[in-house]
Amino acid sequence: MSIPATYQRIVLASRPRGPVTPENFRLETVPVPQLAAGEVLIRNHYLSLDPYMRGRMSAAKSYASSQQLDQTMIGGTVGQVLASRNELYQVGDYVNGVLGWAEMGVSDGVLLRKLDATRIPLSAFLGVVGMPGMAAWYGFNQIMQAAAGETVVVSAASGAVGSVVGQLARLRGCRVVGIAGGQEKCDYVVRELGFDACVDYKAGNLEADLAAATPDGVDAIFENVGGACLDAALARTNAFARVALCGLIAGFNGGELPIKNARLLLINRLTLRGFIITEHMEYWPQGLQELAVLVANGQIKYRESVADGLAAAPEAFMGLLQGRNFGKQLVKLI
Amino acid sequence: MSIPATYQRIVLASRPRGPVTPENFRLETVPVPQLAAGEVLIRNHYLSLDPYMRGRMSAAKSYASSQQLDQTMIGGTVGQVLASRNELYQVGDYVNGVLGWAEMGVSDGVLLRKLDATRIPLSAFLGVVGMPGMAAWYGFNQIMQAAAGETVVVSAASGAVGSVVGQLARLRGCRVVGIAGGQEKCDYVVRELGFDACVDYKAGNLEADLAAATPDGVDAIFENVGGACLDAALARTNAFARVALCGLIAGFNGGELPIKNARLLLINRLTLRGFIITEHMEYWPQGLQELAVLVANGQIKYRESVADGLAAAPEAFMGLLQGRNFGKQLVKLI
Repeated sequence: MSIPATYQRIVLASRPRGPVTPENFRLETVPVPQLAAGEVLIRNHYLSLDPYMRGRMSAAKSYASSQQLDQTMIGGTVGQVLASRNELYQVGDYVNGVLGWAEMGVSDGVLLRKLDATRIPLSAFLGVVGMPGMAAWYGFNQIMQAAAGETVVVSAASGAVGSVVGQLARLRGCRVVGIAGGQEKCDYVVRELGFDACVDYKAGNLEADLAAATPDGVDAIFENVGGACLDAALARTNAFARVALCGLIAGFNGGELPIKNARLLLINRLTLRGFIITEHMEYWPQGLQELAVLVANGQIKYRESVADGLAAAPEAFMGLLQGRNFGKQLVKLI
Repeated sequence: MSIPATYQRIVLASRPRGPVTPENFRLETVPVPQLAAGEVLIRNHYLSLDPYMRGRMSAAKSYASSQQLDQTMIGGTVGQVLASRNELYQVGDYVNGVLGWAEMGVSDGVLLRKLDATRIPLSAFLGVVGMPGMAAWYGFNQIMQAAAGETVVVSAASGAVGSVVGQLARLRGCRVVGIAGGQEKCDYVVRELGFDACVDYKAGNLEADLAAATPDGVDAIFENVGGACLDAALARTNAFARVALCGLIAGFNGGELPIKNARLLLINRLTLRGFIITEHMEYWPQGLQELAVLVANGQIKYRESVADGLAAAPEAFMGLLQGRNFGKQLVKLI
């Protein structure tokens, strides 16, 4: 494989005020650097787009430091080693890394993970067998702890995380109710993923529809959205229900994002826990192994929205924040 | 001891619409019943008034069934056995029961607990060595799990529950910051109970005052109030802080009681758990034993507001809901 002289990347040009706009990003062509000892040059095949990136674009305090201006946008990638001065990685190895919105990247090897792409497509390591899958696995197994027969509600149900939560719950024998935007996503969630029901929040009748879909109440919630979705699910909770708080995509464009009725947390003796999956690395080996088996066996299905080429990343990212994607949002770079 | 022919009780006359009013209660004189086999007749010495009673007065769904109209208001009591047809209880025994807002009551013995009042005053079994003390003990030890050096925030800090939480935290070596209403209560909390600081929410500067009192942020919250108190404490949380949600007295008079910024739950990876102490009876023997030792040794102090006579109960209860009490609110019946 020949090594090009330059590659393209996208940097954060400005921080959003309100919704993200194309002007917040800038596409640049930069030279491919020389490798220092221990470094690896990687050509990225796929870039992962994820809601957490929106938080990093703001200067406000979040759980991670904010993305620097004029630097490559952060992001998970899968790709292939083009050149290596690190004995752990050989040219041609498939690897998962955090090389950002860029056609190539250099890593010191610390955050790289070698991938076996013989049974699972490379892109899946950014989704169902990657960070989103682990978020689902951890939230379901460590926080929701739902038993067979219990009712589980999952928001953003057709998304990269929600789709895995629901399928794990179905395999456990739970009643699984999704919340998604639009009839097409809801149909997919029920017919393809095997959820028992899915409520279309865009139909304008979220509370009543969710109530109808959860006749025995709700025992566990996986929350990706917040706002009206979370309020509606909380209103249906049974005593001792558990809430895994993974994302609050409803609040990404600023403004307050209240929980309307805090009384329910007490009246129903709820346990709510917010978590960031990258802080629980001790679970990743077990979780990824279990997910890989389920995917390879066809017991967990997944869907991807694939944008073509790096220049398409900003538009795809804005679409993700508005729910225009369908399944895991990727950018194909090669 | 002679047995009177009649006794007084207070029944729920009507359900409150908004704030509780005297018209919601009715004082009645009723005949002392004949005991059936297995029953015990008890003369109540003290009645406990507690915020949870407000929830029972509403017909709305809560964690317990609502108080029936025209029946004796529910409530914990301590008193002495006047007559017994139950071999486990002898005339003269001191007992803790749930005999309600009444001078006397009949029990089948199931919910009675015999008391040793030789080292601890009888009234304390309704407070620091009773249900409020247990709520503090459980929330602190099982949910907050605060370590030495961590900062703990306690709302309603001079109250029956909050005062115990803060003293347990102080004994653990935590930095303890209370929130209370008025300078007198704040002074008591700091000078008598040994809290490191106490913020007067009535001073009108809650957020800034709490921020000043928690320079290292907040690692654990014991919430009795909700609303602005909880929002201010959440705004100060460090990563992985724990919130024990014991009461929401701010919302007792109806209307919504939001958590303003749900984003904090995710950003700071908080764990919040609502609990009802009577659902965790398995911890009571250990907790009450530990509290009794700490009280007998003078390591936990407490304060009582004592109303005189059953007829004073409604007014005292309304005062409790408005924070006019100072420490555990009791009604002395004999």
